[in-house]
Amino acid sequence: MTTTDLDPTTGAAAPSPSPETPFLEVIPLGGMGEIGKNIFAYRYGDEIMVVDGGLAFPDSHQMGIDLIIPRIDYLQQNAHMIKGWILTHGHEDHIGGLPYILPRLPRVPVYGGGLTMGLLREKLSEFGIKDSETDLREVGMNDKVQIGTHFHVEFIRMTHSIPDNAGYILTTPVGRVLHTGDFKLDEHPSDGLLSDLPRIEQAGKDGVLLLISDSTNAERQGRTTSEADVSRALEEVIAGCKGRVFLTTFASQVHRIQNILNMAHRQSRRVVMEGRSMLKYAQVASTLGYMTAPDPFLTSEEVGGLQDQQVLFVCTGSQGQPMSVLSRLAFGTHAKIALRRGDSVILSSNPIPGNEEAVNLVINRLYEIGVDVYYPPNHKVHASGHGSQEELAQVLNLARPKYFLPWHGEPRHQINHARLAQTLPRPPKRTLIAKNGDVVRLGPDEFKVSGTVPAGAVYVDGLGVGDIGDDVLLDRVNMSQEGILIMTAVLHPVPHVEIVSRGFVRANRELDNQIRRVALEAVEEGMREKKRLEDIRDDMYGAVRRFVRKVTGRNPVLIPMIVD
Amino acid sequence: MTTTDLDPTTGAAAPSPSPETPFLEVIPLGGMGEIGKNIFAYRYGDEIMVVDGGLAFPDSHQMGIDLIIPRIDYLQQNAHMIKGWILTHGHEDHIGGLPYILPRLPRVPVYGGGLTMGLLREKLSEFGIKDSETDLREVGMNDKVQIGTHFHVEFIRMTHSIPDNAGYILTTPVGRVLHTGDFKLDEHPSDGLLSDLPRIEQAGKDGVLLLISDSTNAERQGRTTSEADVSRALEEVIAGCKGRVFLTTFASQVHRIQNILNMAHRQSRRVVMEGRSMLKYAQVASTLGYMTAPDPFLTSEEVGGLQDQQVLFVCTGSQGQPMSVLSRLAFGTHAKIALRRGDSVILSSNPIPGNEEAVNLVINRLYEIGVDVYYPPNHKVHASGHGSQEELAQVLNLARPKYFLPWHGEPRHQINHARLAQTLPRPPKRTLIAKNGDVVRLGPDEFKVSGTVPAGAVYVDGLGVGDIGDDVLLDRVNMSQEGILIMTAVLHPVPHVEIVSRGFVRANRELDNQIRRVALEAVEEGMREKKRLEDIRDDMYGAVRRFVRKVTGRNPVLIPMIVD
Repeated sequence: MTTTDLDPTTGAAAPSPSPETPFLEVIPLGGMGEIGKNIFAYRYGDEIMVVDGGLAFPDSHQMGIDLIIPRIDYLQQNAHMIKGWILTHGHEDHIGGLPYILPRLPRVPVYGGGLTMGLLREKLSEFGIKDSETDLREVGMNDKVQIGTHFHVEFIRMTHSIPDNAGYILTTPVGRVLHTGDFKLDEHPSDGLLSDLPRIEQAGKDGVLLLISDSTNAERQGRTTSEADVSRALEEVIAGCKGRVFLTTFASQVHRIQNILNMAHRQSRRVVMEGRSMLKYAQVASTLGYMTAPDPFLTSEEVGGLQDQQVLFVCTGSQGQPMSVLSRLAFGTHAKIALRRGDSVILSSNPIPGNEEAVNLVINRLYEIGVDVYYPPNHKVHASGHGSQEELAQVLNLARPKYFLPWHGEPRHQINHARLAQTLPRPPKRTLIAKNGDVVRLGPDEFKVSGTVPAGAVYVDGLGVGDIGDDVLLDRVNMSQEGILIMTAVLHPVPHVEIVSRGFVRANRELDNQIRRVALEAVEEGMREKKRLEDIRDDMYGAVRRFVRKVTGRNPVLIPMIVD
Repeated sequence: MTTTDLDPTTGAAAPSPSPETPFLEVIPLGGMGEIGKNIFAYRYGDEIMVVDGGLAFPDSHQMGIDLIIPRIDYLQQNAHMIKGWILTHGHEDHIGGLPYILPRLPRVPVYGGGLTMGLLREKLSEFGIKDSETDLREVGMNDKVQIGTHFHVEFIRMTHSIPDNAGYILTTPVGRVLHTGDFKLDEHPSDGLLSDLPRIEQAGKDGVLLLISDSTNAERQGRTTSEADVSRALEEVIAGCKGRVFLTTFASQVHRIQNILNMAHRQSRRVVMEGRSMLKYAQVASTLGYMTAPDPFLTSEEVGGLQDQQVLFVCTGSQGQPMSVLSRLAFGTHAKIALRRGDSVILSSNPIPGNEEAVNLVINRLYEIGVDVYYPPNHKVHASGHGSQEELAQVLNLARPKYFLPWHGEPRHQINHARLAQTLPRPPKRTLIAKNGDVVRLGPDEFKVSGTVPAGAVYVDGLGVGDIGDDVLLDRVNMSQEGILIMTAVLHPVPHVEIVSRGFVRANRELDNQIRRVALEAVEEGMREKKRLEDIRDDMYGAVRRFVRKVTGRNPVLIPMIVD
């Protein structure tokens, strides 16, 4: 068990580098070259500090997978070195993996903001992880934390799409690292709390050896829309709605939801929160003082007596998730509420890449019902939480780092972020496009990939964590494309073959009979020639494979079985 | 067999309506409420005229399906009434279904523009359909065609993303129908041939009873970018490329490809066409005079001797299709060509909805290789072929239809097109949002859905047309999510159970043994109680289902088999 001290008052000078370990290693285990499952480790000597522990959602080829967590072999192998953990904010791609990760590693202090910790506690308790099994320590902005003897961390506020979002300045024996965390530079943040650009500027003056910055929107020109503009657009749309309003957004958009609660109050609408995650976030945020409902929430039954224009539902479903409230409303499968002409639906969100089709389906169903539907880009009711090129440039200009590591992005985002940096008045001396598992060695005059450690994806499906590999996924892809055909040859007393298929072709007795005949001929010939069972099975497989390909043009997954 | 006359010279007045059939029926069999597989029928009395015969591509839930064609039961049931067919243009979603459709219906005259017919001929010959089996008749713009006794058709030019694109004015006993076909209003078309707005205006003055218009971009404000602007952006990008250029676009973008050939000539680059469909379109278009290469095409071997900045490849793969040239280049699996730093890749295209993930994957791989990649929106190297709101409004303003049928769109597009029409100085008297299979009854004072006919999707997979139904697709979806588990119980001489699975979990002997034990217990108990075989099978199924769900949290497709 390792312990470290929380010292929020002193900015203790880092010890001078030991001659044996003149380098800091920056080791992204997730979130580099991808958007999702953010986690990385810093190692100096025999001490490791970890940042975040997120999850990712599967793409369309990762069929049936519920979610993806990062491989943590490196951390497990070096568990004794881990001195502490820091969390930048409470989004799933930064803390969603922790219920899987923390129990597999030694109990060390985990530092993070109030809402971040509130959301993490809720998550851990859902997984049945007891408070005593973890050491969660809440910090405020500008708090300073010493982790081990070599890592000195100062949390700094950065605006994003969730409260209590932090970057940090890490002071190490080799120099200063500035990690922005996820950010945009919102000049009109909902809570009035600006990004701490003065602190970044000061760090820039003191000298930033390495900047690690958010690349998500590195391809977008200009600046990202302020949350204040989103609020204005939402208020205008809601004011124009004559009937009931159903609004969906990300449940973690605590500030936006607060703004919506205020609008509802101003417009004399009572609010119903619908959907498990919406209720959970609202509950955590309210308990911790991050959300204050001007009027108590009502249930869908309780608003039954109100007039249509006195009701506003805030519900889940912004990504077209099939079981979400909005999807059930759109497809008419919600147990208590039915949409009708005169209602308005506002999607205060954009589809995350991969969800376009699901969201489009929901939108079309809403139109078919005859409700009014409002969504971007024609209605400016959403803005990204990530900064665009001018914001990224501003942080680079203030921090003036010697070295630069574009992070939180796919290669296209990382590389465009790197190019952007090169266009600035004082470009970084060197930029690396790193991948998960790269060991980035950092010293006063050193910045390169010096090796790799294991990194990658662990699939979570149902109760299984890591019991699905790429081989299993490949089977799923193959079966999804052409179906499966199972042939069971029973050799005695009289050889015969049974055929079962799924997802192959519509029930077709004629084709089944032909396949059975082809298989049986192969089996009978094998028996006549007294072949071994494996060879008979292979012959049957080959004969049916060729026949099916010829007759149907398809290659279903074939499973030959012999019962002797 | 039915024949009709082609009369390109007279605009013969339509006969007056017979008292028995005062109505025209407009029957969309595809392309209404969706984008894809466009086809519709007009019926008057005992005569039917058909327009287009397209295909659609599967969405992500239609797993393994190659393509989708429209159900044509209505046409087959009324085959004797079909007097003729007209084609608006040569895109797959308008003619791609014809090789499946035409052979199933009587041979009637099929009218269309030169390139449309050239592409159709090529397609039919690939399917082994002989010239003598069809009656293809080429028409020019403003040609007039009489189909049966009741349908008088005048083709009118509309600009789009393929040459020879036509709308038409259909004069019938009940009045005039104007169908725009796919269109944008490009004021700088590559071939200098403008949309025939004067003819639309004239029709508007003469009286348009019904307008059927393209809704694809009804949600986009303003006007769609002209092809001339795309050309300018492309020329600028190419001029800035120091090494080899690889450009991909839709193979049917004949005008754009012509412009690119001209640019290559001006910039002293020789062109290599790569990819089956790119070569096919270029060949048809060149043969018919729609494309003229200023310099002969070279092969990838022939340009080997040239300097890098003297080469431009035009290749397939704009949609990230796995077997396309660009995908093979990106993943390093092309047999002859390897991308390298210094090369530039231009995607003169946008991903069609559903292809975002595939295109994104290709783009990221290109960045990783280190080539320069150019694509929209940061580079304006593509424009849609469909008009935006101002163009749609202009056509509505000129045609001034009494009735309006928004077509070629999903419900969101149709409904926004309908709303747009209501904002105009002289809105239509009535607009219908129709679905495939709706029978829209049209008369001088009548416009309503009067019934329905069968319509929907026929799946084409491998050699099979229509042998895959939604039940088969559901099996594919289920297997793709959780895999499949096959249990074979052999009862004699000693009961035992074999387990095979695919896509379920990684090979796990312990779990297999447990499942086998659970299955065997159910079988042995059933045998002791002398149950019927079906009941033993059901017991085994139930026991394993419960066990697997409890232990893994999953529901694979289970297949129980009993060998007695």
